[in-house]
Amino acid sequence: MHALRMALIVQKYGGTSVGSIDRIKNVASRIKNERDKGHQVIAVISAMGGVTDKLIALAKELSNDPVERELDVLLSSGEQQSIALLTIALNEMGIDAVSTTGRQAGIVTSGSHTRGRIERIEPTLVNQYLEQDRTIVVAGFQGITKDGMIHTLGRGGSDLSAIAVASSVKADLCQILTDVDGVYTADPRVVENARKLPEISYDELLELASVGTKVMQSRSVEFAKKYGVKFEVKSSLNNNPGTIVTEEHEAMESVVIRGVSIERSQARVTITAIPDTPGMSGRILGALAEAEVNIDMIVSNIASDKLARHSFTMHTNDLGRAQSALKPVLDELSADAAIETEAGIAKLSCVGIGMRSHSGVAAQMFEALGKAGINIGMISTSEIKISVTVEEEQIEKATRVVHTAFGLDA
Amino acid sequence: MHALRMALIVQKYGGTSVGSIDRIKNVASRIKNERDKGHQVIAVISAMGGVTDKLIALAKELSNDPVERELDVLLSSGEQQSIALLTIALNEMGIDAVSTTGRQAGIVTSGSHTRGRIERIEPTLVNQYLEQDRTIVVAGFQGITKDGMIHTLGRGGSDLSAIAVASSVKADLCQILTDVDGVYTADPRVVENARKLPEISYDELLELASVGTKVMQSRSVEFAKKYGVKFEVKSSLNNNPGTIVTEEHEAMESVVIRGVSIERSQARVTITAIPDTPGMSGRILGALAEAEVNIDMIVSNIASDKLARHSFTMHTNDLGRAQSALKPVLDELSADAAIETEAGIAKLSCVGIGMRSHSGVAAQMFEALGKAGINIGMISTSEIKISVTVEEEQIEKATRVVHTAFGLDA
Repeated sequence: MHALRMALIVQKYGGTSVGSIDRIKNVASRIKNERDKGHQVIAVISAMGGVTDKLIALAKELSNDPVERELDVLLSSGEQQSIALLTIALNEMGIDAVSTTGRQAGIVTSGSHTRGRIERIEPTLVNQYLEQDRTIVVAGFQGITKDGMIHTLGRGGSDLSAIAVASSVKADLCQILTDVDGVYTADPRVVENARKLPEISYDELLELASVGTKVMQSRSVEFAKKYGVKFEVKSSLNNNPGTIVTEEHEAMESVVIRGVSIERSQARVTITAIPDTPGMSGRILGALAEAEVNIDMIVSNIASDKLARHSFTMHTNDLGRAQSALKPVLDELSADAAIETEAGIAKLSCVGIGMRSHSGVAAQMFEALGKAGINIGMISTSEIKISVTVEEEQIEKATRVVHTAFGLDA
Repeated sequence: MHALRMALIVQKYGGTSVGSIDRIKNVASRIKNERDKGHQVIAVISAMGGVTDKLIALAKELSNDPVERELDVLLSSGEQQSIALLTIALNEMGIDAVSTTGRQAGIVTSGSHTRGRIERIEPTLVNQYLEQDRTIVVAGFQGITKDGMIHTLGRGGSDLSAIAVASSVKADLCQILTDVDGVYTADPRVVENARKLPEISYDELLELASVGTKVMQSRSVEFAKKYGVKFEVKSSLNNNPGTIVTEEHEAMESVVIRGVSIERSQARVTITAIPDTPGMSGRILGALAEAEVNIDMIVSNIASDKLARHSFTMHTNDLGRAQSALKPVLDELSADAAIETEAGIAKLSCVGIGMRSHSGVAAQMFEALGKAGINIGMISTSEIKISVTVEEEQIEKATRVVHTAFGLDA
């Protein structure tokens, strides 16, 4: 990390970090440390851990399907409490701090209630406070529509708020403080030798996130990429440097594989004997989408008899729903069409922008797995990712094998 | 009460009335009843009972003296929750309802944080919802400054919100729903024969309120008087008619005394041998004001030796602070100046606009008390009120005697 002198830092603290009075005091101390070094700080925070769930439970006592407009009014009260409490703590420490709700911070949203999208930031008030050299505590997860209605941003919304605010005030650094230490080459609970990455590109994090490394929601990373906001993922519990997420640069390509991630509890559905006529795939995928089955890997090929096979992976929980949804479709396809299913599999992915300029990465991965006696099921690739399915009971071993094969071990 | 056809009704529900999920459902049913009769309803509500105290307790864990700007942000979250929950309950019953925060309801305030004053109401959004024939749930107790800062209105603020909203939308009726049944001729716990008043004037309620009948805060009544908002104080637990509070009219004057109220735990402070020179009273009252002693009755007279005596009443809790504050002043007054104090007294007041046109009311009151063997201490009068102090142990008997003497018994 480069040294910052008199910088403007946006720090995002999640619900766990402000989950009790003591933790709020701890966050206040961390902010004070930055102030003492001469930096300006904008803290973007979530509701105290547990508060949102309690509020939802109250609403559910009144209705199985509470109106979403009012859920937004209800849930946004959670951050309104946490920003006030943190600001009180900061003032008690002698820091001249003020809170702003999403509205006051000028977070303008569009889209639907409970899953608003940030449209733009109008940081008039925030800039005014910055000019007065005050510390600002912004309510994450919330904004308002141009008509003045309260919106919440859905899961991971506070990260999104922080990145959007950082962009709007041209912050020198945006820190996402969380309960993990940064982004690792693999899950340290699986791979003992996993290393924390000093740096990763937006695209790599996106691919890792989409395959189960739950550091951040994809849309926050996409937003950061779109607006070129460099941010650091680091722990709110210590002062270790975290992982900088940034635009890719040339030096990054020297590393072939940045990290390895896994997704467990997957299932495969294969439909056989599909007539090779236009519209068949659309019919199948449409039925699954209608049943709200999220499918992940899609593999398709044509057998010699001009009949196609489609295979998909999905979470095991969706398997039953998928089978029900596909049954009526089968009859339309052909008399021979049938469904094969397989549960108990897992997905292993290698991600790295270096793949673009290095050939033979897939071969190296399959060879390593083969040598270790691990059988590969489905395979799918993107420009910077190779994913395979393996038996779920072999996933941890497979991860360690691949991690070693690509020289990622500490 | 006159029958209302297709009326616009503002109903205010306090924290106790929305203090639990079941009570919120009960309030929703009451609103539905009005809708079913064809009326339009705007409900102005407080935070769920206990929530405000819990939030203050959290703030106090962080600071003995939390910044007031942030207390407002914190406390206003309480109504934001209750309006959302009530609106969810209404929608669940098939009522097309929407919530509005103080800001969305256009409640514009001035003054200080934690004790904002309502400056004006800009009911653009509320009127829009009314045109759509929707039921509106407004957050009481809160508003915003013209700069967009959140204000709370202090004690009794939700009543004030309701009356201001009623005024701004020209409601046909404003109902203050509370845990009392209406305004009584006397406290029914003291006077068994006390009667609920069908009607009372603003001024009478103000005088009764200021002497201990805690139906509503004075400023809400003053606000209603200023803007001519007729309102009804009634129970949220039954459907009995309450008391209409309105401008005085001729028929009201036929009743000499509308009601009797008492204030307990009073103390008297008398300062003797005050030189009869200008500025002495100001000096004494200034010292008490500086020590934040609220004084109530003030009686002053001149003895034959050109030395004055001042007496004041105050709450017993303030007596010590008053004595400390007056000590340095005494030395300035004269060598003979001294303080006498008496605790254990109470105040009894008779209130009625009929006093203006009836003479001999004081005489009638004093005679009744005298006949009952009750000694009178200090006396003070206003245009529509006579107050006396008596020994605290005689206050209940004194109240019954006066209540009977003025023909108020049921």
